[in-house]
Amino acid sequence: MTAPQEPGVLDLGLPSVVRDPALPARVRIHEVGARDGLQNESALVPVEVKAEFITRLAAAGLRTVEATSFVHPKWVPQLADAEELLPRLAGLRERYAGLRLPVLVPNERGLDRALAHGAEEIAVFASATESFARRNLNRSVAEVLEMFRPVLDRAGAQGVPVRGYLSMCFGDPWEGPVATGQVVGAGLRLLELGCAELSLGDTIGVATPGQVAGLLDAFVRAGVPVGRLAVHFHDTYGQALANTLEALRCGVTVVDASAGGLGGCPYAKSATGNLATEDLLWMLHGLGIETGVDLPVLAATSAWLARQLGRPSPSRAVQALAGTAAPTA
Amino acid sequence: MTAPQEPGVLDLGLPSVVRDPALPARVRIHEVGARDGLQNESALVPVEVKAEFITRLAAAGLRTVEATSFVHPKWVPQLADAEELLPRLAGLRERYAGLRLPVLVPNERGLDRALAHGAEEIAVFASATESFARRNLNRSVAEVLEMFRPVLDRAGAQGVPVRGYLSMCFGDPWEGPVATGQVVGAGLRLLELGCAELSLGDTIGVATPGQVAGLLDAFVRAGVPVGRLAVHFHDTYGQALANTLEALRCGVTVVDASAGGLGGCPYAKSATGNLATEDLLWMLHGLGIETGVDLPVLAATSAWLARQLGRPSPSRAVQALAGTAAPTA
Repeated sequence: MTAPQEPGVLDLGLPSVVRDPALPARVRIHEVGARDGLQNESALVPVEVKAEFITRLAAAGLRTVEATSFVHPKWVPQLADAEELLPRLAGLRERYAGLRLPVLVPNERGLDRALAHGAEEIAVFASATESFARRNLNRSVAEVLEMFRPVLDRAGAQGVPVRGYLSMCFGDPWEGPVATGQVVGAGLRLLELGCAELSLGDTIGVATPGQVAGLLDAFVRAGVPVGRLAVHFHDTYGQALANTLEALRCGVTVVDASAGGLGGCPYAKSATGNLATEDLLWMLHGLGIETGVDLPVLAATSAWLARQLGRPSPSRAVQALAGTAAPTA
Repeated sequence: MTAPQEPGVLDLGLPSVVRDPALPARVRIHEVGARDGLQNESALVPVEVKAEFITRLAAAGLRTVEATSFVHPKWVPQLADAEELLPRLAGLRERYAGLRLPVLVPNERGLDRALAHGAEEIAVFASATESFARRNLNRSVAEVLEMFRPVLDRAGAQGVPVRGYLSMCFGDPWEGPVATGQVVGAGLRLLELGCAELSLGDTIGVATPGQVAGLLDAFVRAGVPVGRLAVHFHDTYGQALANTLEALRCGVTVVDASAGGLGGCPYAKSATGNLATEDLLWMLHGLGIETGVDLPVLAATSAWLARQLGRPSPSRAVQALAGTAAPTA
């Protein structure tokens, strides 16, 4: 009763796998739990716990770990200890070859502080919509982008790679659906200003796979190599992993994810959690896509951090791997 | 900056959508919340609440609503009120044209009880693995299938359509990964015995999209029209929606889902919840796939039932739609 062998079908007495040739052989995970995750948690995490968390993330095999943010402590008290944290991570890059520890900076003052404390790579954060730019930074989209020009110029002069985040790429809580042309316009500007990589964020988690393909297609047709694009999905409506699968089919190989789904409490009314790194890894490894990350080690790390935060991880895979899965009929 | 119009790309000043021609125009949802969902909830739900729940599911536009199970009350006390429930639903089929209310039956005795209480459509439940067949029914897979022969013969003689569930199609908690040939063998047997439709279940939620494509491909190459196959995913590792997307690409148009993700408590160690109907609808409607279901009405129904159960819905979309979504940076 075994199906006959044909090209593209493996049958090893295990579940047959049809390998989609559009999928990449390897994906780089841009781990955002320590920054985007903890910044959206209500708990204040001690700096030594953060340092241990990032050390464990590197030990699990993650090689791009966004460490913290140099925004003003008044705005993000959760990450007010950035200057204390970075020096504690100084030895990690020697221990783990190829480890990158980018930090978010909002302006030149933030860049100065980040570089003074050992940052070798930075990220900037812009919005595709006017409403969010106004609410987040009290500026227009164009003004936000101009604000980054000196940051990007100085980073470029010092050989510091810059990642650009673009938020609200599909929907905005005040404006509703966002026009693709508007997103491409802002994204192209970030790349022209010198960002090496552009992370397209579905900040409120409303996108579906056809829209993901639509936006990526629009960027590629505007001349952007897909290798410069990353995706950043939120699981607000449970769509993050399906959207990621679609993005991979479109050629994306860099995916943002948050260990344990940090940044979204499943029972909060405003649950807007990041895609959990463990749920992503389960899919990628099942598809035979290499990541270099050890899933059980990472899940144990997320379970450990959840205990520090005093609440369970919203990641389905962490819940399953940390407990004893029992079958139901 | 708007991308030029090309075939297959819509730009309406909204998010562009690239329509995957492999996706269907319409999907039929086989709603399992009232049976598979409630059977796996620890709470005992009063029969009048069940009747109202099913009435609300029909009012939301669902047209295949599995109502209950005629297994012995000793085994599934949650559904021991099946004989009381069915008569309460008698008027629904007149009110909602095309409404189907199948019920699960384990054997001829169950069939007799189901038909005596007004069932017009039934489902039977078999396992792809020996271990689960033994633990669930204390029989071999072949014996379970033989046990259904008189049920299917009598149903066929009376013109009662039968759906076959096949569980453990990818992984089994005792056996690990399950060979595709074994699944196809058991599935073909269910179809030969007279099942009109075969629902392929990832009971422990371990499958990934390449395996889904592999299994569907194996059935099609064994001569089964894809229109007779349905998929039944669990979200144990967060894979259910990505797997569904893959199944749709492979031609499947019938998807099992559970309103509000009923059947899996997100904080239980054995969280093996069904795919939430609302998360599924968000994706399908975003892809322009018709379902006939009103998502806000359904989400309100799931929020209402969650209050009856005394705990939040594990569905991300229900959490987002029932609360006030607030953005995060």
